Amino acid sequence: MRWYIDSGPEGDIVISSRVRLARNIKGYPFANRLTDAGGKEVLERCKEAAQPLRLKYITMDETPAIKRQMLLERHLISPEMLVATGNKALLLSEDEQISILLCEEDHIRIQCMSSGLNLHEMYQLADKVDDVLEERLDYSFNPQFGYTTCCPTNTGTGLRASCMLHLPAITSTGYIDTLLATVGKLGMTVRGVYGEGTRAKGNMYQLSNQITLGISEQDSIKRLEELVKMIAEKERSIRASMKKENGDKLADMIWRSYGLLTNARLLTSEEAYQLISDIRLGINLGVITNLPIETLNELTIIAGPAHIAEKCVENTRLNRDKLRALVVREKLNSRKD
Amino acid sequence: MRWYIDSGPEGDIVISSRVRLARNIKGYPFANRLTDAGGKEVLERCKEAAQPLRLKYITMDETPAIKRQMLLERHLISPEMLVATGNKALLLSEDEQISILLCEEDHIRIQCMSSGLNLHEMYQLADKVDDVLEERLDYSFNPQFGYTTCCPTNTGTGLRASCMLHLPAITSTGYIDTLLATVGKLGMTVRGVYGEGTRAKGNMYQLSNQITLGISEQDSIKRLEELVKMIAEKERSIRASMKKENGDKLADMIWRSYGLLTNARLLTSEEAYQLISDIRLGINLGVITNLPIETLNELTIIAGPAHIAEKCVENTRLNRDKLRALVVREKLNSRKD
Repeated sequence: MRWYIDSGPEGDIVISSRVRLARNIKGYPFANRLTDAGGKEVLERCKEAAQPLRLKYITMDETPAIKRQMLLERHLISPEMLVATGNKALLLSEDEQISILLCEEDHIRIQCMSSGLNLHEMYQLADKVDDVLEERLDYSFNPQFGYTTCCPTNTGTGLRASCMLHLPAITSTGYIDTLLATVGKLGMTVRGVYGEGTRAKGNMYQLSNQITLGISEQDSIKRLEELVKMIAEKERSIRASMKKENGDKLADMIWRSYGLLTNARLLTSEEAYQLISDIRLGINLGVITNLPIETLNELTIIAGPAHIAEKCVENTRLNRDKLRALVVREKLNSRKD
Repeated sequence: MRWYIDSGPEGDIVISSRVRLARNIKGYPFANRLTDAGGKEVLERCKEAAQPLRLKYITMDETPAIKRQMLLERHLISPEMLVATGNKALLLSEDEQISILLCEEDHIRIQCMSSGLNLHEMYQLADKVDDVLEERLDYSFNPQFGYTTCCPTNTGTGLRASCMLHLPAITSTGYIDTLLATVGKLGMTVRGVYGEGTRAKGNMYQLSNQITLGISEQDSIKRLEELVKMIAEKERSIRASMKKENGDKLADMIWRSYGLLTNARLLTSEEAYQLISDIRLGINLGVITNLPIETLNELTIIAGPAHIAEKCVENTRLNRDKLRALVVREKLNSRKD
């Protein structure tokens, strides 16, 4: 199932897990140095190598900007792929769990994504995809360092694993600053998923590993998973004490957000993300019942700027905010009480 | 029917109409000068004189403070009656349309109140009540000035007529200042119903006549009614242009207020009045349908400070705000969609 209409382990805090492997084909320069003919050749070879996986092949050049942005909002392509110059393509599985970015920074970036905390599973899946490709492709590999990549920070395992976390309590109590500082020391990175700055929009953070050299894939993933679990515990404990000490006010805040999200006639994506965050917290604290968390996951995607703009006949800011409010309302009113 | 669970002519703007007649009994000093024995005698005589009207007799001394405040919130007694010292009483009809305040400032104040713009009807009703009382009581009357009253501003007809108006558009555009100045020149008064200050809570204003000398009752009422109609027209025209020029934002504001009122878990009376005002506007502009205006009229009363406090087991601010939110939610969720 598509990650964003599902929920997984530790789904009260961990929205999604993603594992990415960076690979390059021997005998070709890195993507940014490829000639047009070289680029076409790399794309063709990758497409062929991936045939057993039965993925959909989408070239960026032939994909309208708005559709590329929708792919980005679903975390299926990177911001680099938005600029559709040259030979860039995406191989995508039906359930959107597997996406392979071709000629982005590296020739090949295998991405596997699922809802909840599923790093090991996603690593195994990425590894399988990697095996399929490697059967028909010669990877550029250095016996001393490991897989060579365009950017040296990826050299070695070529692995980057990340989790998207919802941390409203850690954010609202200011503990996020401590966390940001600590995580850096452990060789990991945290950043706001929606927008930069101290307070991430919708309290969504992406935690990812940064070390690719001198550590095995399994260890790298294990360390990230441990940290995610630790952060999730902290988040849960702050949530519990917020509920205990200020339950009435917390419930009021959550229900007000619900009232606004289900009734507003104009909604910016920023406000929608924030309201969704409050409601997500409300569901996890048992304040709001009968609303599946999966609905909110889906809502975050379908209310995104590109997903709304694509549906908008006359694409003005007012019309987008109006349509977003409608899309959100229709989705939430379809819930069974 | 009780005025506050009903709606009447011009009910989109005129919430209620009230006519009051001030009378005193010959041979007794004004209420503030009455001895205890004299006060008891006046009360007894009035009670007897009113017998044909079959009104309920409520002495203020024996009414708990919270119940007196509830009577005030229903506009059945005056703030002066809240202080229950001495002999003060209320005669009240079952439907709360007729209330006679005894020994407030004057011996007798006949009040007739209904929803909507109903000044003539209410004047006729007050006149009838007056006739009944006059059959058994000798009023203090001066052939030159008319009915004598405690405060000289009431001397003459003893009549005061007023309408409660909902003026959100006039308030939000700032036209209210012009109105306040103009109305004074016409010998009328406007004041906020809930709280003082430039912006009345809930955009509710009471417009009343101030001239009691040298003008007949009928003329006095006619002039007030004409002014009310003129203000109502102005309010309607500003509402219409607001809707035309800024319809999306207006609908958004109205629905957000509806979302908050139906979902909040903590509500102060001030916020409730403001949200009710927005929704009232929404109903009248056709933005919100299927919600009868009568429900909002009732809501304004049952969400009032005293009405909530009376129902509150443990009377703290938090508990009152919690109970108010519950009372409001239950009332609004009972509506048929």
